Amino acid sequence: MEKPLILVTNDDGITAPGLRALVRYMKEIGDVVVVAPDSPQSGMGHAITLDNTLYSKKVTIDTENGGTEEYSCSGTPADCVKLALQELLDRKPDICVSGINHGSNSSINVIYSGTMSAAIEAGIEGIPAIGFSLCDFSWDANFEKAGDAIKRIVREALDKGMPQGVVLNVNIPKLEGKEYRGIKVSRQARANWKEKFDKRISPMGKEYYWLTGEFELLDKGEDTDEWALANDYISLVPTQFDLTAHHAIQNINNWNLHE
Amino acid sequence: MEKPLILVTNDDGITAPGLRALVRYMKEIGDVVVVAPDSPQSGMGHAITLDNTLYSKKVTIDTENGGTEEYSCSGTPADCVKLALQELLDRKPDICVSGINHGSNSSINVIYSGTMSAAIEAGIEGIPAIGFSLCDFSWDANFEKAGDAIKRIVREALDKGMPQGVVLNVNIPKLEGKEYRGIKVSRQARANWKEKFDKRISPMGKEYYWLTGEFELLDKGEDTDEWALANDYISLVPTQFDLTAHHAIQNINNWNLHE
Repeated sequence: MEKPLILVTNDDGITAPGLRALVRYMKEIGDVVVVAPDSPQSGMGHAITLDNTLYSKKVTIDTENGGTEEYSCSGTPADCVKLALQELLDRKPDICVSGINHGSNSSINVIYSGTMSAAIEAGIEGIPAIGFSLCDFSWDANFEKAGDAIKRIVREALDKGMPQGVVLNVNIPKLEGKEYRGIKVSRQARANWKEKFDKRISPMGKEYYWLTGEFELLDKGEDTDEWALANDYISLVPTQFDLTAHHAIQNINNWNLHE
Repeated sequence: MEKPLILVTNDDGITAPGLRALVRYMKEIGDVVVVAPDSPQSGMGHAITLDNTLYSKKVTIDTENGGTEEYSCSGTPADCVKLALQELLDRKPDICVSGINHGSNSSINVIYSGTMSAAIEAGIEGIPAIGFSLCDFSWDANFEKAGDAIKRIVREALDKGMPQGVVLNVNIPKLEGKEYRGIKVSRQARANWKEKFDKRISPMGKEYYWLTGEFELLDKGEDTDEWALANDYISLVPTQFDLTAHHAIQNINNWNLHE
């Protein structure tokens, strides 16, 4: 039987340790091709490159176990997936996995997430897709502990198939000295960021800002991804790219929109 | 009575004719402040500027009717909204309008849309928000025809209030020699882009790509935004930023995710 073809990408860049860990896990499951940004793309949301050229080159990074077919790309995570599907892969992949992101993409962070935009792009193209994120921003985060859970989720997705129009947003808590309590299917918690702009003056006398902020959870539900993570579970949110607020259609039909 | 405060932004840049038209319409309704990108940001999705500095400056563009308070910003549309709310405005705006985009943001285009990311950013912050797009990419598109409908929608939103967690994605068909048939509350049509990469060789001998593509409608529904636009209606899709596929939670709970 042919092994599944697994497209691996991310938003932290092709050399990120989180991607390297994900490649290692995926090679236990199938044939892996990596197409990932040549530089970090965090916070890129679902950006695509419309007004600029894209470069891509075949690169050799891993040499373990016969190496891996890998391409770096000058574009965003969504660009990487488009280029992979259209130009670089010989056949349609059986699944696309993105990550492991260095940092959380739970709750409202999904909106800003390059990791999830790659998964969503694959989902739009009808390919089962999963974004994985570890709630630890450090470059040398420990990605080993989550390996078994990640493989289990990917195997189940390959086996059971993905519901139409759905991709998975998997977030993994940072645990030290204890074990995950399991995987919890969750909903996206309501939250936002309380921005603060750090205003400074450049050496040339020009004002500029750094965007900083604090995460503000607005949701006490015990069925949310934030609750799961705070309680040592891996959260798994089925995520859709039909953004229609179907429940609001009737409400807005009561507006006076006609002359 | 205090006039409503209206934040105007876009993704085509602060000098775009679509934004100028929107400013003109909004000044009939309330007090307007513009905070918009200093350069075009199409296709930026919900990108935010994390690893770079942001510049903003007060600019004078319109001088009609006493001029308008305006700020250009070096960041993305989402950055503009964050900066406006946190740093530039004296009080919370009553509504945020984004556009008028030069080009459609209907159907799956909402995912890639800088115009809509600005509206969504405002929505996350609890501000009623609407993105407006005209299905005409040209710089000198005719934005006049849609003025009455745009004002009607904004006035209704101010009057009736926005359902929680919802922003509006309004798309306006390009009509010549005929009139709009009305405003139709719609759902996002299923569609994708069939990408084609135009591969070229640079003068330096390096391969590069341009991303091009064709829109592929996968949805025959007569309740979609694409149907509305094709039938000379202005489409209005209530759009949410809770991406949870609630209907899929039960399905995925049947997966074998436990040891």
